[in-house]
This record gives sequence, structure tokens and C-alpha cells, in this order.
Amino acid sequence: MALIVQKYGGSSVGDVERIKNVARRVKQYHDAGDQVIVVVSAMRGVTDNLIRLAGEIMPIPSDREMDMLLATGEQTTIALTAMALHSLDVPAISLTGAQAGIVTDGVHTKAKIQNITPQQVHQLLDAGNVVIVAGFQGQTSDGHITTLGRGGSDLTAIALASAVKADLCQIFTDVDGVYTTDPRICPKARKLTEIAYDEMLELASLGAKVMQSRSVEFAKKFGVVFEVRSSLNDNPGTLIKEETTAMEGVVVRGVSLDKNQAKVTLVAVPDKPGVAAKIFKHLADATVNIDMIVQNVSHGTAAPSTDLSFTVEKADLLKAQRVFEGVRVEIGYREISTDENIAKLSIVGVGMRSHAGVAAKMFEILAAEDVNIGMISTSEIKISVVISLDGAERAVQAVHKAFIEEAQP
Amino acid sequence: MALIVQKYGGSSVGDVERIKNVARRVKQYHDAGDQVIVVVSAMRGVTDNLIRLAGEIMPIPSDREMDMLLATGEQTTIALTAMALHSLDVPAISLTGAQAGIVTDGVHTKAKIQNITPQQVHQLLDAGNVVIVAGFQGQTSDGHITTLGRGGSDLTAIALASAVKADLCQIFTDVDGVYTTDPRICPKARKLTEIAYDEMLELASLGAKVMQSRSVEFAKKFGVVFEVRSSLNDNPGTLIKEETTAMEGVVVRGVSLDKNQAKVTLVAVPDKPGVAAKIFKHLADATVNIDMIVQNVSHGTAAPSTDLSFTVEKADLLKAQRVFEGVRVEIGYREISTDENIAKLSIVGVGMRSHAGVAAKMFEILAAEDVNIGMISTSEIKISVVISLDGAERAVQAVHKAFIEEAQP
Repeated sequence: MALIVQKYGGSSVGDVERIKNVARRVKQYHDAGDQVIVVVSAMRGVTDNLIRLAGEIMPIPSDREMDMLLATGEQTTIALTAMALHSLDVPAISLTGAQAGIVTDGVHTKAKIQNITPQQVHQLLDAGNVVIVAGFQGQTSDGHITTLGRGGSDLTAIALASAVKADLCQIFTDVDGVYTTDPRICPKARKLTEIAYDEMLELASLGAKVMQSRSVEFAKKFGVVFEVRSSLNDNPGTLIKEETTAMEGVVVRGVSLDKNQAKVTLVAVPDKPGVAAKIFKHLADATVNIDMIVQNVSHGTAAPSTDLSFTVEKADLLKAQRVFEGVRVEIGYREISTDENIAKLSIVGVGMRSHAGVAAKMFEILAAEDVNIGMISTSEIKISVVISLDGAERAVQAVHKAFIEEAQP
Repeated sequence: MALIVQKYGGSSVGDVERIKNVARRVKQYHDAGDQVIVVVSAMRGVTDNLIRLAGEIMPIPSDREMDMLLATGEQTTIALTAMALHSLDVPAISLTGAQAGIVTDGVHTKAKIQNITPQQVHQLLDAGNVVIVAGFQGQTSDGHITTLGRGGSDLTAIALASAVKADLCQIFTDVDGVYTTDPRICPKARKLTEIAYDEMLELASLGAKVMQSRSVEFAKKFGVVFEVRSSLNDNPGTLIKEETTAMEGVVVRGVSLDKNQAKVTLVAVPDKPGVAAKIFKHLADATVNIDMIVQNVSHGTAAPSTDLSFTVEKADLLKAQRVFEGVRVEIGYREISTDENIAKLSIVGVGMRSHAGVAAKMFEILAAEDVNIGMISTSEIKISVVISLDGAERAVQAVHKAFIEEAQP
């Protein structure tokens, strides 16, 4: 007998039939003697519909009232899921985030979980119930309803698993698990049996769509082992867990490609203290997020200048350009060049810490494919390069072949 | 400056445009310096849609989970209404039934309000807010969400008005107020300026659709004066209040017609103690509600028998017949006859208490119209007769003319 937290996302509870499927799956665990807490999202489309309604009332509704409104989405799903379990003769009871004891700060629409008092959840489990908890929501200590922002239901599941000391936390989604790379780009991509928190975090920040970083960070902080798996079949998924010694034997766990970046280069920026600070302060003020930054060596000696390149999301490119047009005199650069025809290719693995020559090998592979490298950025467990968008998929296939298919037969 | 509770029903908040209209009306009171508590129902159609969803999951869902599900309807409206007020620069905050301090018993889907602790409502009002409260819902003392059943939002408004000691409670609906009779039957029907609780109760139980009896009973019990008025115009409505001496000057306040009744007659029922009890016990067990009951005098002396007639709602007629077919031997009646071609015509007025000859006058009027009376039932402030459906509207016009148009010029 185990205590299990299962989370089902919006597509897994997208309609009545899918909710019934969720109930059938939950029943299997319940019948096997497990105690099950089920965390559900709003049915797909419901949240968007509520946002649309609010938009018809006013352009920018208050965050508190948006939370009041959006919280109804998950509340609808928990009631329907409880009914679906009842229809299979499984005792079940639904709880809103507030009822489940999820207390957050008061930052409406992106609240942080402060603590969970799971007494009632335990009582209901001990009485034989499956307990269905509304994901994505909580309440402040003085009783206002809050929501947790994007990926909030994953966070609810992981935080609950931590609070009730669950034996297992399963995140059911529409993918089979975490893959070594995107199978649509590389047919030889493999599903990973396990992956370290830090690797998952790097992959999440590199654009892998499986989970938001904050849920993984929370799991890492509180040591919650969780599994990402499909709600459409019974295949085992991928375990996300603390790094083990065995994991270090693998140099590269995953290869990711982010096509959603654009490169901005400021040509001939005065190379003197404080200029870079000014540049990125202006971008931050305009809420443009920067990813990679590269500064070249200086040219000239009398009035030395340098070229400064960085990447932004494609959607932010125009905003970034406008920022610089407004401060051209202040910064003193000569010109701006931009390039949307780029992609960021990354390899991630905790094994890089103990293996030398990984970067060199990667560059060799790309050179053999005649792929030119525009920018390079590294961390302890990651190497990213900016390359031309055109050969990007071919580059992923070559890197995947060398680091995963051949190195981990 | 007054403290006002306003309730808007499902048709008054039926879509975004109507919600904006509600906000404009509330703003007028707020701008005039009044403190306003707004109670809203679910948007028209929303509750039905939720019930349909639940029905697709299982035929008879658990009452607790139905409450969890249905409570989202009003929660959606309060958030949208608060936003609509914000868009008019009126400070407003929404509260669920639970947040507004509405504590009920645990009888899910038809809970009774046990008490209201309106401290938070007062604090929010004193801070300058319009407070929007979800109608129809509350929570038990141990935190389960409940709903109040049909007419629940009216009840919320009246109970809140009592708890906060409001100066005025306004029930906005799609009719202009309470009329002396149905204007579709009698074009000379008049809107009443005021009506006593007891008169309103009689009219409600006689099929007038304006309000459920339980809300009126609650208002009477706690002395809450309320006004029924239209959300479509600015006309004053009808005040429902404690009986005054002036009210007794009016003999008949209203004339009602209920076409939804059917008559059942058990012919030659043994006239001995306990038979009537048995008959109505069987009907109660089958949840058939009885309205009027008439027992004729006995025939015969050796084995005396009598005829017993009663009225039920047309929808219950088949059920009532089946009940009797199953207990024919036990009861010992000779035959059942039924009549769906009937209507119940009633006159209501607290003035009847102090005026003699009202019944006689009513019977004369009907006789003059050649309307035959099938059954008669009276209370202290009401006279009801069962007549043939065919001449029923003509009868209403004649009674209305004599007792209202001519007697109260």
C-alpha cells in the first residue's frame, strides 16, 4: 500500500469521457489498496473562456477578481471527477485548494505556496476516500482565493506530495515522459528512465515543454521524486529525482533545440565600465528577458570599442530594438544588427562535471556537419551554441547520434 | 446614506452586457453615498449546463459534489460583476457565500442558513467597497460548500439584509413588482405598492412565480422589509412588509389562478377512523404533494362510505393514480376518477379577517358568470375554489373587476 499523488492536466480532463478515463485509472490504484490524492486542472478551454469573458468586461481586470473567476475552472473539474469515481463505486471527495489547506502569499495570479496543512486530506484518505484536490489554487491566510500561475497544477501536486510525504507523485500528461531530444526532430530519441532535477531544470529553461521550472525547483528543494507519464497509456514514464552517482556515467542526458530565439548585436559599443550595465538595465525596464550574452574583445586603443551580442525571444525582438533606438546617444554604439534566423542547440548532463572535452567534441561534430557556431554559452552541466536556423535540425541529429546513440548503446 | 442589499437574478446577469447594466445601476447608489451589498445568481443557462455535465457523468450525482459544482456558477458572476464595477471606477470586491460568513446546515442542495457572521462584509463596506456576494451558497461549520436550493439567491439577500441590519433590500427581477393578478389574463391588473408577508406567502403558494415561499417566510420571521422590482427600468416596485392597520381596509389584495392542478376523487371510501390517514400516508411516501382536500358527508348507515377528493400537481397525477391502484384492497374504495380540466382560483387579502361575506360575494360573482364550483378551501386570509379550466380566465376577470377594480377605485 502506497500513498500516491496523481496530477492530471487540462487535456487529460478535457471532456466528460476523459474524466471517466481518469477515474478508471485512479480506481486501479484504489482497488490495489493505495491511498490516492488526485490533483486536476481546469478542463481544456474552460480557463481561456473565462479569460475571454473577463476581457469583454474590461481590458485589464483586477488580479484578485481574476483569481476568483479562474478558480471556478478547477472547482468544476474536481466535482465532476469525484462524481466519475462515485459512478465506479469508488468513495471520493473533492476539495478546493483552500479546503485542502493550501495557503499562499497574496500575490494574486502568481501566488507562491507558503504552507500546506493536510490534516483534512489525511482524515479523508484514512476514511477510505480518494481525495480530489483543485490544482492551481489556494487561499491567503486571511481567506482570499489565489491562483499559482502557469504550471500551477504541477506545483500543487508536488507541494501536496511533499506535505503528505507521499511515496510517489505522478504527473500525467499528453507525452510519454522526458525524451533525450524532440522525437519529431530525431526519430531515434529515447524516453529517459530517470533524470536529475538539475538536468530537468536546464531542459525546462531551454524550451522543453514538459514542465515549468518552478515545479521542478520546488521538487528539488523538498526532495520530491516525481514521474512524468502519459494519461493515454500504461507505459512507465520518466522519474525526476536527486542526482545519483550512476547518473554521472552519462555525459549527455538530453539535447534540446530552441527555435524561438533572435540575436541582437550592438556594433562598436564603447568599451568602458558601466556601459553593459546601462544596456541591460534599459532592457530589464522594458521587461525584455535576455538569454545568452556574448561580448567580444576590444578593438582600438584610443577609444576602445567592442561588439555586444545577446539573444531574446523572437516575440521581444521589436521591443528590444525600440529600447535601443531611444538610447542610441546615451549608449554610443554605432549600429544594431539583428538576426531571427537562428536556433539555440544545447546539450545537458550532470556527467559533464566529471568528463573533460565535451565542448570540444560537440564543436567537432558541428564542424563535420559544416554548421557554423555564432555564440557559445556554458554552465557546469550544459553547453549551448547559437547556430543558423537552416541546418539546426540536422545538427541536433548529429549531436544526438554521437552523444547518445553511439555513446550510450 | 443608507445600507442597501440588492439581489440580481440569473436573467439580470444573463450576459456581459447585462452585468454591465447591473454595475451601472449599483454605481448610481454608490455615487449617492449608499453602502451597497450586491447578491447575484449564476448567469442564466450556466447552472443548467453544469447539471447537464454532471448528468453525463452519472444519473444521480452526490449532493455534496453537486453543490461543489453548482457553486462555481455564482462565483463566476461575482468576479465578473466586481470587474464591471471596477471598469466604472467603483471600488468593489467579490465574496463567495463562505467568505461572506454564510453558515448553513449540512443538507446539501437544499441547505438552511444557520447564521451569518458579516464582520468582513462590514469591514469591506466601511472601506468604501461595493461588496458582491455569491447568492444561493454557503458553507457548513466544518467547511463544506453547500447550496440553498430553489430561490436560494433571494434567501441569501434577505438573510444578509437581516444580518447587516440593512435599511433596504431590493430584489431585482424581470417583472415590475407584484400585481393584483396576472396582467396576461386581466389587462386591468395593477402593480401593488405594498403587500403583507402573509398575503405574499399565500400568493407564492398559489403559484405566483415572483418568489419562493421560504424567502418570504424568512423575511417575515426576521422582519426584513424588501422590494421586488424590475432590473430593466427605474420604476418603483412592490414593498413586502409586516401587515399594517391600513392594509386591512383592502379586502382582496390579489387574485391568482393556478392551472397546474388536477383533481383526484376516490369514490365510496369506507367512512371509518384511520382511512384518510392511510390514504395520505401512501401519497406522502410516494412524494406526491397534496394541495386541497375535500371530504363529503357520509352515505349509508350499515357500512357508511364517503367520497374523498384532493388536488395534486398535474405532473404528479400519474404517480398518484399508481399509488392507489396498488392499495385498492387495503383502502377499500370503489373507484378513482380524475380530472385534469380544472383550475384553482383564489383571492387573498388580510382584510378578509375583518370583513364578513367575502366568500358569499365571490360565489355570487362566479354564479353570475355561470361558473360551477367543484371544491372550496378557505384560510383566514384566502378563499380558493376549484373550477373548470374552460371558463377560468373569464372568472378571474370577473372576480378582479368586482373585488379590485370596483371596490378599490
